[in-house]
Amino acid sequence: MAVYTEVSDEDLKTFVAEYDLGGVVAFKGIAEGVENSNYLLNMEAATYILTLYEKRVAREDLPFFLALMEHLAGQGVPCPRPIHGKDGKVMRNLCGKPAAIISFLQGMWPRRVLPDHCRLLGQAIAAMHLAGESFAQSRPNALGLEGWERLFQACAEKADEVRPGLAAEIRGELDSLAKDWPKNLPKGIIHADLFPDNVFFLGNELSGLIDFYFACNDFFAYELAICLNAWCFETDGGFNITNAGHLIAAYRAVRPLQEEEIAALPALARGAAMRFLLTRLYDWLNQADGALVRPKNPLEFLQRLRFHKGIESPTAYGIV
Amino acid sequence: MAVYTEVSDEDLKTFVAEYDLGGVVAFKGIAEGVENSNYLLNMEAATYILTLYEKRVAREDLPFFLALMEHLAGQGVPCPRPIHGKDGKVMRNLCGKPAAIISFLQGMWPRRVLPDHCRLLGQAIAAMHLAGESFAQSRPNALGLEGWERLFQACAEKADEVRPGLAAEIRGELDSLAKDWPKNLPKGIIHADLFPDNVFFLGNELSGLIDFYFACNDFFAYELAICLNAWCFETDGGFNITNAGHLIAAYRAVRPLQEEEIAALPALARGAAMRFLLTRLYDWLNQADGALVRPKNPLEFLQRLRFHKGIESPTAYGIV
Repeated sequence: MAVYTEVSDEDLKTFVAEYDLGGVVAFKGIAEGVENSNYLLNMEAATYILTLYEKRVAREDLPFFLALMEHLAGQGVPCPRPIHGKDGKVMRNLCGKPAAIISFLQGMWPRRVLPDHCRLLGQAIAAMHLAGESFAQSRPNALGLEGWERLFQACAEKADEVRPGLAAEIRGELDSLAKDWPKNLPKGIIHADLFPDNVFFLGNELSGLIDFYFACNDFFAYELAICLNAWCFETDGGFNITNAGHLIAAYRAVRPLQEEEIAALPALARGAAMRFLLTRLYDWLNQADGALVRPKNPLEFLQRLRFHKGIESPTAYGIV
Repeated sequence: MAVYTEVSDEDLKTFVAEYDLGGVVAFKGIAEGVENSNYLLNMEAATYILTLYEKRVAREDLPFFLALMEHLAGQGVPCPRPIHGKDGKVMRNLCGKPAAIISFLQGMWPRRVLPDHCRLLGQAIAAMHLAGESFAQSRPNALGLEGWERLFQACAEKADEVRPGLAAEIRGELDSLAKDWPKNLPKGIIHADLFPDNVFFLGNELSGLIDFYFACNDFFAYELAICLNAWCFETDGGFNITNAGHLIAAYRAVRPLQEEEIAALPALARGAAMRFLLTRLYDWLNQADGALVRPKNPLEFLQRLRFHKGIESPTAYGIV
């Protein structure tokens, strides 16, 4: 929920003149997304999203993200397609920040997740993983084991302010994750941030996957582990095994899972819970004055981590 | 910049089923407007704005505001038109709050105000004032002399925390405004909140006047006095007499001003500055924890009030 940069009429006019889209018909900030400033941009040609990349997204990674979206869209993945300017470029400067125009996707993200959403999601993820195999570029996951360690160092001192004992619990979990983390699983391009607000549905179809700004190369099964955390817990903390079962079964119908991938799911799910616990904890402890975004509660993911730690076999995820 | 209420898919579906607009194609919160939650609602039929009225807008006033917009739109004023449901109603409940669908207006509000904007604004205001004369309902201005007094009472004790001496200065100004306030000037429907972000321009035309939720019956010239405050000061505090001259001249070309209206402008402009000084001061002193809106600096309007106090005749507003 944020628009961090106010774009003036003149700046916008100059910016869009670099594209073949006609004149601006309307321009409104969108109250979604926490990393970047997003605007609805109605042009004479069609409706687009204009994204201004705020500092949390590394400028040097943007060509990767934009090229990936273009590649996936070309393979039929329902994701935004970057729009090329008259000079062929998809990225340029606006108000001193990198900016891009991408296509507008129809649909609405689900405020209440149903098993059918998870089924469509599983299919779409698997198709995206397959479509990514022909993408030539790669990017390491900055929020993997080493990244967690760095985040923890930045939070360790104050973590117990959020909850007594939190620092010690995270330390112990990081150590056990380092031991249990799989070494060899099928790998490729993953989205790595597929929460419900990044997935649009329209009627009975999944109409959009958005916000590829954490995309990277990592284990395919780690994407499923993220989705288990992001789509399969109720607001009261309970695990929804029906949602999980639909997610995984639909995925396997498109891209079969190896036995090692299934066996690794509990550890991967603990890691995914750790990743969101740590980034949320960092944001919680480093709230900017006057920020327009309410930080999310990190402790939700501590609960989820404990759940994954407690399960006895991957069948607890509804795998049949 | 705010979306206060999260609308679920199911609630939205049930809500739009009351209208003849087809299915929902997209739905996004808009990061504009501070009083209500606004969403861009793409329907199969067209694009609309869905507004959820938060508690600052009195529920009992909503029928007035919506009927006024419908009346003005019918008279050719470029303002949003409320959409009627199948039952004929323009207002119903969503997530426990009153809500309405209104038409979407093209254009963009000017981040940097130019004399041409003021010229188009002057014409549009005058035309709106004339169009309002055939509107049957009326609503007193809750933010007139008495309203200021109430707001001041609520702020007096803490006002000096914002600036030493502020309470005494406001008290003195309120007393002198009560003496100087005109008794008899041409009156009718005014918008009463025409800041640049409530006015859209497209190409060389004014394409929209929005946000009628302060509209009321008051002196027509008071609307001009509000616009002098809202459109004719530079960010450094300087008064832009060119903008003011264009605003007033364009207004007079459509609805001539009486001599009494012109003579009253300095007092009316002081009053308008007082109105925004007081509401901003109130918001500044009553910030909710975790609010998503940054309160605006009230002292800008103290400077403007002092400017209006210091002028010797209405010619200082560029009137020729």
